[in-house]
Amino acid sequence: MTNRKTIHIEWGDCDPAQIVYFPRYFAYFDACTAGLFKKVGLPKRQMLKTYGIIGIPLVDVRASFMAPSRFSDTVVVESEITEWRRSSFSVRHRLFNKGALAVECFEIRVWAAVSERDPEQIESKPVPREVIEKFSVRGLARPKSRRAKQ
Amino acid sequence: MTNRKTIHIEWGDCDPAQIVYFPRYFAYFDACTAGLFKKVGLPKRQMLKTYGIIGIPLVDVRASFMAPSRFSDTVVVESEITEWRRSSFSVRHRLFNKGALAVECFEIRVWAAVSERDPEQIESKPVPREVIEKFSVRGLARPKSRRAKQ
Amino acid sequence: MTNRKTIHIEWGDCDPAQIVYFPRYFAYFDACTAGLFKKVGLPKRQMLKTYGIIGIPLVDVRASFMAPSRFSDTVVVESEITEWRRSSFSVRHRLFNKGALAVECFEIRVWAAVSERDPEQIESKPVPREVIEKFSVRGLARPKSRRAKQ
Amino acid sequence: MTNRKTIHIEWGDCDPAQIVYFPRYFAYFDACTAGLFKKVGLPKRQMLKTYGIIGIPLVDVRASFMAPSRFSDTVVVESEITEWRRSSFSVRHRLFNKGALAVECFEIRVWAAVSERDPEQIESKPVPREVIEKFSVRGLARPKSRRAKQ
Repeated sequence: MTNRKTIHIEWGDCDPAQIVYFPRYFAYFDACTAGLFKKVGLPKRQMLKTYGIIGIPLVDVRASFMAPSRFSDTVVVESEITEWRRSSFSVRHRLFNKGALAVECFEIRVWAAVSERDPEQIESKPVPREVIEKFSVRGLARPKSRRAKQ
Repeated sequence: MTNRKTIHIEWGDCDPAQIVYFPRYFAYFDACTAGLFKKVGLPKRQMLKTYGIIGIPLVDVRASFMAPSRFSDTVVVESEITEWRRSSFSVRHRLFNKGALAVECFEIRVWAAVSERDPEQIESKPVPREVIEKFSVRGLARPKSRRAKQ
Repeated sequence: MTNRKTIHIEWGDCDPAQIVYFPRYFAYFDACTAGLFKKVGLPKRQMLKTYGIIGIPLVDVRASFMAPSRFSDTVVVESEITEWRRSSFSVRHRLFNKGALAVECFEIRVWAAVSERDPEQIESKPVPREVIEKFSVRGLARPKSRRAKQ
Repeated sequence: MTNRKTIHIEWGDCDPAQIVYFPRYFAYFDACTAGLFKKVGLPKRQMLKTYGIIGIPLVDVRASFMAPSRFSDTVVVESEITEWRRSSFSVRHRLFNKGALAVECFEIRVWAAVSERDPEQIESKPVPREVIEKFSVRGLARPKSRRAKQ
């Protein structure tokens, strides 16, 4: 299950060196992770409502920048979930510019809800099995039932 | 040589989970790195002009998010350069919220100029010795000569 | 009641023309409006909780850009509420760079809460009289009573 | 000549009220203006190089926000240049959410180059006639020559 997202790099994503301002890459990747869930039938707003979570915040991220990209470039990001753990999961993003790998990013995110003891706090919760299954081959092999619902 | 920067977290830095949207942390840290150089007498615009570079872009970054921060929080970031290499250097940022470490970030940046062979390309250049010296204890111990210049 | 906020313009606020990317000015001004309320004792998070609102979103904004500002510039923004209406209010921001007016911005914001009929909707509510009074001269002339409360 | 751009609203474009953080609308519109020029054959990077300008910065902008939009919404922005003047031009953007006008924005931008007298300054220059003609009906009526090139 890989999501491919085409991104047109905008003027406002670039800094005075005329290349993408690196925090913007993380916004791209955040949208790519949302795109992954959307692809299996879980647009973010719907997903939060269905599962009673407040988001899928990061606990860890790292990125390597191999080549700069510039405004008016069109890049492609390939994203996939590389591991599911009890209440967290890993995502890998690879951004390609003219076919060459330009940025690679690894995110670790948690399935997070408002704490039941303290509404001011956020706590991780187990990722529902049905969410994980949507990403499995079997999940993708059931387009019929999904079509039936609509 | 540690730079301490106090940051007031703004509404616009936060996402629908009401916590800081993580790419914004990288913008904070980018400003903190600039603050380090400013502290030794190299405000960024001046530094770029003086040394003929186009910036100090990242080649690698990683961050761990231990606790969320929210709008109206005031946080403190402690930043320091942990290693100088020929044409790159490492920076560590630690963001504290109410005294507790909330985010830690490690950047590797390069001293970068427009390529002489191809003005469309960026290439790394050796960090000037005098820049590195400004961060050394000896550099900080020479306020007299700096005052003399003014 | 004028709030003065000093802003150091960061690299990441600027675009490839090396000047502030104009949407960032609106983020500055949004923080300046929050600063106005904070100055009268209403930090945003506290204000939202106390009055049961979800924010003070804009319904109208206009800005004139008289001169560009650049990274490493330090600018000052003077902000004031120029008019209170039943459920909305007007804010004027003036950004000065080296003493010269560089940007002027006029916001109209509403005092907004989740709709009681439809929790998916937002609706304006009357601005509480006590909020408005905090901005009046009389309000500012009562430091004693405020101190007494603490 | 109208450009229609479909925008998927991302989590990171929204604020703690769970609606689009208004400065992000201006980034959307900035990309829409770039999209207009791209549509007539002038992708921004190319345009800057061809005409020796540093950008098309704003001198004036106003916007009205009629209805909020939220993450996971897909909106459409219709943009058109409503007036050409000697060295500036006006752009109108209308953002529709589920068919209803949600935001309207009017930009005035200048055709800007580095000043010849002072390279630290920016100055407006006359918009080249051939740029304006690309947006005219005649310009659009010449698909043949353009097709011939391909």
